[in-house]
Amino acid sequence: MAVSDTLADKTVAVLGGTGPQGRGLAARFAAAGIDVVLGSRAPDRAEATAAALPGQVRGMSNADAARAADIVLVVVPWEGHADLLTELAPALAGKIVVDCVNPLGFDRQGAYALVVEEGSAAQQAARILTDSTVVAAFHHVSAVLLEDPSVEQVDTDVLVLGDDRPATQLVQDLASAIPGVRGIYGGRLRNAPQVEALTANLISVNRRYKAHAGLRVTDI
Amino acid sequence: MAVSDTLADKTVAVLGGTGPQGRGLAARFAAAGIDVVLGSRAPDRAEATAAALPGQVRGMSNADAARAADIVLVVVPWEGHADLLTELAPALAGKIVVDCVNPLGFDRQGAYALVVEEGSAAQQAARILTDSTVVAAFHHVSAVLLEDPSVEQVDTDVLVLGDDRPATQLVQDLASAIPGVRGIYGGRLRNAPQVEALTANLISVNRRYKAHAGLRVTDI
Repeated sequence: MAVSDTLADKTVAVLGGTGPQGRGLAARFAAAGIDVVLGSRAPDRAEATAAALPGQVRGMSNADAARAADIVLVVVPWEGHADLLTELAPALAGKIVVDCVNPLGFDRQGAYALVVEEGSAAQQAARILTDSTVVAAFHHVSAVLLEDPSVEQVDTDVLVLGDDRPATQLVQDLASAIPGVRGIYGGRLRNAPQVEALTANLISVNRRYKAHAGLRVTDI
Repeated sequence: MAVSDTLADKTVAVLGGTGPQGRGLAARFAAAGIDVVLGSRAPDRAEATAAALPGQVRGMSNADAARAADIVLVVVPWEGHADLLTELAPALAGKIVVDCVNPLGFDRQGAYALVVEEGSAAQQAARILTDSTVVAAFHHVSAVLLEDPSVEQVDTDVLVLGDDRPATQLVQDLASAIPGVRGIYGGRLRNAPQVEALTANLISVNRRYKAHAGLRVTDI
């Protein structure tokens, strides 16, 4: 349970933490010894979900979780993304906000990238949260693998994008706290659209190969 | 020099084959025992480049290379992409056209994805080449590694996208002919934009880590 020095005094919030991805990330961070709070629109659901997770995770409303944390992961459905961030903007001021949202549509041919006016969910977050530092990460990590306690090493890297180097480095450290994962700098926020959209390709891979595909960056 | 059965009677053309990426791919295919022709706008340059490559590669004009081949890789600069394909459309009719082009811009902050009206270079190719079968692949393979004969195994997977399953499978076989590489189905052509654009992120990775980054798909 060795926490990276850079994360030892930090609280991490997972907004939308009652879904599989949020639960899985919260569980892995807590297992790494990080102080985690789990937010949900419904505080009682957040409390119930948190209580069912291994480790010391506290459940509360999204707004309370945002206020309690230094680093706030946004793991909500794309549909409610802009409204939630607009509502929480004051609570998120001065914090690192990690957008993990993939704006995808689905039809009978599978998943596809939705058109986002700002280019990406992360860029939309940056437009709304002018007093926060927005980073994009955790787009491709399989919720199934995160949630499966028998998976000791999650076999994927996490691309971390942002325009603020200390913030992206801290989120890289956070990603690297998950056993098996390396947090890797993946470019500026303007290059987030394709990272979010690539999730549609990984869904195609998963269907074709019956897998929980992830990505490793080679030669680093 | 064991050629995949599916490629044994096929000729592969590399259009724009005198650049580093085209040369590298042509050299690796030839080394795998595949019949390769190398095309260029200037036939004499194509001949000179082909002569300098190891293996039996023939150089000729882009149009002659297109006519000579069953599978035609397009490895040209984005700027000339639409014009070249429009000009070669009759020669490419009935063939598998593999678009390898990344529409990128560069400024002092690095690389970024250009806006493409059709969504991607591959979708532009499909719009122009209505009598060809368009596949998208080979976007992320480092030319430096392909061209370096001391690199025996190229440590990356190649995502192959397309709407025609036999064609995508054949191009997966072609990718897998490069030692170390696996050709992996990566989705339909409508999901090509983010695969092309992701090259900008890999360029950011290369700058930050001083690497020739590639991507491996995990769990398959």
